[in-house]
Amino acid sequence: MDVVDIIRAKRDGNALSDREIDWVIAAYTDGDIAEEQMSALLMAIFFTGMKQQELNRWTAAMIASGERMSFPGIGRPTTDKHSTGGVGDKITLPLAPIVAACGAAVPQLSGRGLGHTGGTLDKLESIPGWRASISNAEMLAQLRDVGAVVCAAGAGLAPADRKLYALRDVTATVESIPLIASSIMSKKIAEGTSALVLDVKVGVGAFMKDLNRARELARTMVGLGSAHGVTTVALLTAMDTPLGLTAGNALEVAESLEVLAGGGPADVVELTLTLAREMLAACGLAGKDPADTIADGSALDCWNRMIRAQGGDPAAALPRARSQEEVTASASGRVVRLDALAVGVAAWRLGAGRARKEDPVSFGAGVQMHAKPGDVVTAGQVLFTLHADEDTRFARALEALAGAVDIAAVDMPWSKPQLVIERVGA
Amino acid sequence: MDVVDIIRAKRDGNALSDREIDWVIAAYTDGDIAEEQMSALLMAIFFTGMKQQELNRWTAAMIASGERMSFPGIGRPTTDKHSTGGVGDKITLPLAPIVAACGAAVPQLSGRGLGHTGGTLDKLESIPGWRASISNAEMLAQLRDVGAVVCAAGAGLAPADRKLYALRDVTATVESIPLIASSIMSKKIAEGTSALVLDVKVGVGAFMKDLNRARELARTMVGLGSAHGVTTVALLTAMDTPLGLTAGNALEVAESLEVLAGGGPADVVELTLTLAREMLAACGLAGKDPADTIADGSALDCWNRMIRAQGGDPAAALPRARSQEEVTASASGRVVRLDALAVGVAAWRLGAGRARKEDPVSFGAGVQMHAKPGDVVTAGQVLFTLHADEDTRFARALEALAGAVDIAAVDMPWSKPQLVIERVGA
Repeated sequence: MDVVDIIRAKRDGNALSDREIDWVIAAYTDGDIAEEQMSALLMAIFFTGMKQQELNRWTAAMIASGERMSFPGIGRPTTDKHSTGGVGDKITLPLAPIVAACGAAVPQLSGRGLGHTGGTLDKLESIPGWRASISNAEMLAQLRDVGAVVCAAGAGLAPADRKLYALRDVTATVESIPLIASSIMSKKIAEGTSALVLDVKVGVGAFMKDLNRARELARTMVGLGSAHGVTTVALLTAMDTPLGLTAGNALEVAESLEVLAGGGPADVVELTLTLAREMLAACGLAGKDPADTIADGSALDCWNRMIRAQGGDPAAALPRARSQEEVTASASGRVVRLDALAVGVAAWRLGAGRARKEDPVSFGAGVQMHAKPGDVVTAGQVLFTLHADEDTRFARALEALAGAVDIAAVDMPWSKPQLVIERVGA
Repeated sequence: MDVVDIIRAKRDGNALSDREIDWVIAAYTDGDIAEEQMSALLMAIFFTGMKQQELNRWTAAMIASGERMSFPGIGRPTTDKHSTGGVGDKITLPLAPIVAACGAAVPQLSGRGLGHTGGTLDKLESIPGWRASISNAEMLAQLRDVGAVVCAAGAGLAPADRKLYALRDVTATVESIPLIASSIMSKKIAEGTSALVLDVKVGVGAFMKDLNRARELARTMVGLGSAHGVTTVALLTAMDTPLGLTAGNALEVAESLEVLAGGGPADVVELTLTLAREMLAACGLAGKDPADTIADGSALDCWNRMIRAQGGDPAAALPRARSQEEVTASASGRVVRLDALAVGVAAWRLGAGRARKEDPVSFGAGVQMHAKPGDVVTAGQVLFTLHADEDTRFARALEALAGAVDIAAVDMPWSKPQLVIERVGA
């Protein structure tokens, strides 16, 4: 096989054969195809796309580059959720124990944050003692005993994706639907879940700003899941405004605990329960009502066991940032817009996120919101509390928040936007 | 500057700014931009192209990556020719001394063959003693005293192009008009000629198979030359059948000498004189008739001085390959097609060309043709004499020639195709 011929074929819009795809992915993973050749191929894919059958094989080859996990004998159906990433998106935290409390097993391999969206592992690591890395044997035992695991993916899972993702990041080839879909789905399928619910975010704070592209991504991923025997459903959900009232690691853990205790912001509760119902239906447990697990305390109990199983102390105080700064409303009226991207960037600049993979995050840093779209505020009222370990961080966070909030007269008509926009089934 | 932002901008179809272009070319030449990033940018350019002004700057930056030569005080106007490459294209060999004999100076920095088209330096190196590498001072003296130099480009000339070309070759980004045009023109402009005639080949044996693409390439290059103060003209010429009756290094030198002696194949003579007239007109010597220099022997005299100035012995016998094999006509009639690509590949396989840059060439190897389209042949008559140093080479050359010739009944209508198809002026 000649990689130049393969690049040329893709560049000219031809579909690659199964043999070509298998060879390209294996040879690249083994270091036998140069980075500059793979980046040229990725850019050609960016422009000419991939047919669904071709993409199925590409994804299969990525999965085959490493191990594919399975969980025999755990006595529960497996089901998982993946979000394409948003601001304040802590949904995994209450969701995993709720679904586990309903009798399913949630084997979630999760990631860290990069850029303005937070990472689930960073959030959980704000809990004293909790560790993200566990062995496959520990994962299996925890799935059987607790029903929920949120942990870091091991190096053995889809190594082709790790190499491809690092390359895409430095060659402006991230924003390609087949490449995004195969990256997400290769990891999720290799993870070994038998059912999967995708939360595809759309809006200013999401990776996909445009509904049509988000829908195309959702359909492509649902197709990939089905082709690999994983029952897959996607929801398109709004990410124009942050989810809940917090963006930041420990801040979001605290808010998740409120949800598990029966409180919490309405949008977080709504999305958590909607996704829980989809996850349960997808794994054959449609008869369970996830809201019951909050009411009867079984979800919170499951959370405590899940955190303890990975070394964490669920009763320990969460880290709090050293400094706080308040932002007040400049006018009275109704909040009609609260920009998710602005809040995400502010939280990032306060220290909640990282600019480079190797940077540490501040667990206490972030943005607390005191009003959301629809709420009526009075001039001078506190809108945000910013949390950071260094006072020097506030200035650039405030810059990000300039213009992030629109306040309109209370008599202007306003309607609450839909949180769940659309469902994409197999 | 962030190279990822630049790749993304180009990928999304935006024009790069002067500052971005200058930085990208300089940083890549210096090794500060990774190969995988440049290949992604090149593939993005393949798809989204470049505006003429953007390409002017890109080419200027490539020129500025090295030295730009000039030839003060030689007392002759400079003029040069560049061919995009064809089979049997030995035109530079008779052309340079003819134009020099008319009073112009021809400072031709030339290349070696790769693939099925031969390289001018390989052809001249078949002359015993001749050397391709000379210093700038030697070049200047030879231009003043002889008027014609054909030599290898020094490492100081457009180093960005050398790096870019090597990368394009392994990433399937060769076939992009802005990238081809900037590669050719950066070298030709840096070479220091004040006038340039481009011979853009079109047809089965050419890099450009399609007239529209060839015309676009010609216009782009003429635009680049004009933007850099070089009087530039392009001719689109046919490359469906080989030029002349030989394809191979020493074989082509011998044929060029026939032309300089007043004989030679009609097509080689026609194209040489047409290009000579364009080169002379472009440098202000339109009053000269290049045919006179053949008739009065001054062109041949200039050839001898040009070869001697670079160490060659113009009177020495040319190398002849050790083995010959003949191919005869399978039918009687008129030759109506003789495929340039097939002949080029056959010559290459016989040893006249190289598969990899570091391979040596055989000076004697190649294909001699005994009939061209329009000629009437008799079954059993010799059509080709193949020359190779090893008998083992004949089989694969014969494979390449299978189906290369069409012979039709002599009473079928046939008209000679045009050699010069179109002229593209500034």
